[in-house]
Amino acid sequence: MAAPSPGYSMTLRVEAPASFTATSEIANAIGAAGAAVTALDVAESTHSKLVVDVTFDTTDADHGQRVRNEIDALENISVRQASDRTFLMHLGGKLEVVPKVPLRNRDDLSRAYTPGVARVCMDIYEHPENARNLTVKRNTVAVVTDGTAVLGLGDIGPAAALPVMEGKAALFKQFADVDAWPVCLDTKDADEIVAIVKALAPVYGGVNLEDIAAPRCFEIEARLREELDIPVFHDDQHGTAIVTLAALRNALLVVGKKIKDVKIVVSGVGAAGHAIIQLLIGAGASNIVAAGRAGTIARGQQHSDEHRQWIADNTNRDAFEGTIHEALVGADVFIGVSAPGLLQEEHVASMADGAIVFAMANPDPEVDPAVAAKHAAVVATGRSDYPNQINNVLAFPGVFRGLLDANVSDITTEMLVAAADAIADRVSPDELNPGYIVPSVFDAQVAPDVAAAIAAVVAKSR
Amino acid sequence: MAAPSPGYSMTLRVEAPASFTATSEIANAIGAAGAAVTALDVAESTHSKLVVDVTFDTTDADHGQRVRNEIDALENISVRQASDRTFLMHLGGKLEVVPKVPLRNRDDLSRAYTPGVARVCMDIYEHPENARNLTVKRNTVAVVTDGTAVLGLGDIGPAAALPVMEGKAALFKQFADVDAWPVCLDTKDADEIVAIVKALAPVYGGVNLEDIAAPRCFEIEARLREELDIPVFHDDQHGTAIVTLAALRNALLVVGKKIKDVKIVVSGVGAAGHAIIQLLIGAGASNIVAAGRAGTIARGQQHSDEHRQWIADNTNRDAFEGTIHEALVGADVFIGVSAPGLLQEEHVASMADGAIVFAMANPDPEVDPAVAAKHAAVVATGRSDYPNQINNVLAFPGVFRGLLDANVSDITTEMLVAAADAIADRVSPDELNPGYIVPSVFDAQVAPDVAAAIAAVVAKSR
Repeated sequence: MAAPSPGYSMTLRVEAPASFTATSEIANAIGAAGAAVTALDVAESTHSKLVVDVTFDTTDADHGQRVRNEIDALENISVRQASDRTFLMHLGGKLEVVPKVPLRNRDDLSRAYTPGVARVCMDIYEHPENARNLTVKRNTVAVVTDGTAVLGLGDIGPAAALPVMEGKAALFKQFADVDAWPVCLDTKDADEIVAIVKALAPVYGGVNLEDIAAPRCFEIEARLREELDIPVFHDDQHGTAIVTLAALRNALLVVGKKIKDVKIVVSGVGAAGHAIIQLLIGAGASNIVAAGRAGTIARGQQHSDEHRQWIADNTNRDAFEGTIHEALVGADVFIGVSAPGLLQEEHVASMADGAIVFAMANPDPEVDPAVAAKHAAVVATGRSDYPNQINNVLAFPGVFRGLLDANVSDITTEMLVAAADAIADRVSPDELNPGYIVPSVFDAQVAPDVAAAIAAVVAKSR
Repeated sequence: MAAPSPGYSMTLRVEAPASFTATSEIANAIGAAGAAVTALDVAESTHSKLVVDVTFDTTDADHGQRVRNEIDALENISVRQASDRTFLMHLGGKLEVVPKVPLRNRDDLSRAYTPGVARVCMDIYEHPENARNLTVKRNTVAVVTDGTAVLGLGDIGPAAALPVMEGKAALFKQFADVDAWPVCLDTKDADEIVAIVKALAPVYGGVNLEDIAAPRCFEIEARLREELDIPVFHDDQHGTAIVTLAALRNALLVVGKKIKDVKIVVSGVGAAGHAIIQLLIGAGASNIVAAGRAGTIARGQQHSDEHRQWIADNTNRDAFEGTIHEALVGADVFIGVSAPGLLQEEHVASMADGAIVFAMANPDPEVDPAVAAKHAAVVATGRSDYPNQINNVLAFPGVFRGLLDANVSDITTEMLVAAADAIADRVSPDELNPGYIVPSVFDAQVAPDVAAAIAAVVAKSR
């Protein structure tokens, strides 16, 4: 069902007999195999042969291999070398740590390092509040994971999680000039994770928790918020919730409905689902039905997990018990943070007119977006290769820019709602349409606007 | 006793009446106050007045204040503003975390982040050894401290230690393209420090321990070496030992003596002293007498600290018991890693002809280098503002470059000796003289040579 994506982009070096049609034959064969050619260069040409570098997007890793095999099977054409552009991009890692000060000569060294640095150290020792100005602390965020819930991949461990955390840190810098550093912890013990992050805190102005499995992530976040004097943000919860709310605001504008009136079905009651429900309620939603694998969460049910119990106590006003499919009948909004392939065409068709479907399971959505779009008025996913990408990168850089600049230690629901509004407002009335409910992740104004929205909330409360 | 240093450099903005001699009066006054003018610019000039920015080095912070007061006291001249160039350099910290990959468009994002990154994660999950190639791990070192023994400042805590660790990280990048990140831990518990560094290890290719007080540093280093599969280096021990050995090799060439023949007195039996003694023995020294605050360490003494006991068992072949001053009579070499002002002129005078004095207490040496030079043939210190600086920056960048490139997990004495030889060899026979026994810290070839020396040792052992 997926379209070819640059995430599965491949370059083949292909040798062919010299002929006027050789390159077009290769390109055609790749197209016929379902891949999308993005670049083609003749690397070498003689009287008798051509060497061609051809780059194309595929739908997944297996597809790439199949395309390669089909090209190799063409008469007189052979693949000399195959390279995976995604892997090439990751060689050597995606971050570097760079000095901001010149170290050209003894004068520089005497100030940046010994003996001059000793005075700066003593100043911080005597006035601990000066650490924010005289060190990296003010602009630096720890991206902390234990690798237990990485993307949709599950518990793959801290080393395998590192490419995601590096990517996150790169986005922090790119979009908000925040210096972020990956902290991938080789432990799953909540007590130990809390103790470690507390011990690391002198270097950081904020903590971004990432891809930590529920329910442990709730405890870790709550305890760190309590015990640290720097802001703690669990991106999978609050980042996702902010961008979901921003997208929902604009989707509701498209279909002409109001958040207080609509019936919202949320599939998935883990970390993201819980945070989304909390924020939707904070923004005025009154009719939410949430469902986990075992069906809807309803009042009167007893859940051992306190977060699930909170959902039971605060949603589903009619105490509806049934499957997610039953709950969806007549609903205005579906928000999925659960698992691929949960919904079929008939389920989307059973929703109310002007239905909104956010199928955000990663990397594969709860329903094929093309199928959903047959019946829903607005469709969004978590993927970058469909329209309306609900991507946390719209939120976290600006949120931390705002928190660091305002020097606040606690994150409030009001800040999260303000961040969502700032993101939603980046889509102007002229631009708004069913295929454009969130701004581009490359809109350079999103992060400054989010930061300003946070700053305004802080200013009001001071 | 200290000379003006760029580490205590100050800029004053001074207003004076317009006159041909105003700038020279200001410069003269600063010189008369014992400071060294390094720059003077007229920032503003009218018919009646001049505004001058004058930058000068002072000997310490109090001296800077005194110079300022003296200028302010001059007739018709007033100080508008004073700025401390060392503090200005530290504003906002000295490091940033920068993406190595472009993130300009959706194609980039799809490969560096989701969905493409998922394949890289799974590859590492399935082949953990690939983490070195596909993440920052291969090129990244943790600079770990608990802030208990920072420079000569003592236990000032992790936040106040951060400017030193940032400086260290900047030097790692500058001299060896190693990405180093400060890990300043808010705990002094050895068990906890070991557990934390182990938990952080997935991100790092090496650990540089720094400014951790003895004897805790020994235990932490030993346990981490045992339990981690990446190299662990305590710079205050092994970095100092390498550069000390390098300097001693060349100093002995200057005075025409051999390491196996000379009597070496080591003042200080903490982390640095212990490591220096070990490495000197590894390099062939046979006559070492070490002394702590209570006098010489000698065979037959019982020390509760196993490292001190090791010194007792392996040095001082004549079992000499007495003060450091008594031990120094007739000695060829003094190596101080202890405390300022330990030696007076008569103590240096009591040494053998062609004496070598390394007074490395930081920031103030064991003996005034100018006084020591009256009697010693070669004098070195730990400071950047005297000749012959025994500076760890000559060692640690190249050592880690070599360790990371060779992918070794264990550091051997042979590697440390090879690193010292590589540093010593950067001073050519033509250059060698009593004021130039170590290469400049800005000699860009030092780190590559040290790295190559480590690689050669590794290659030989494989």
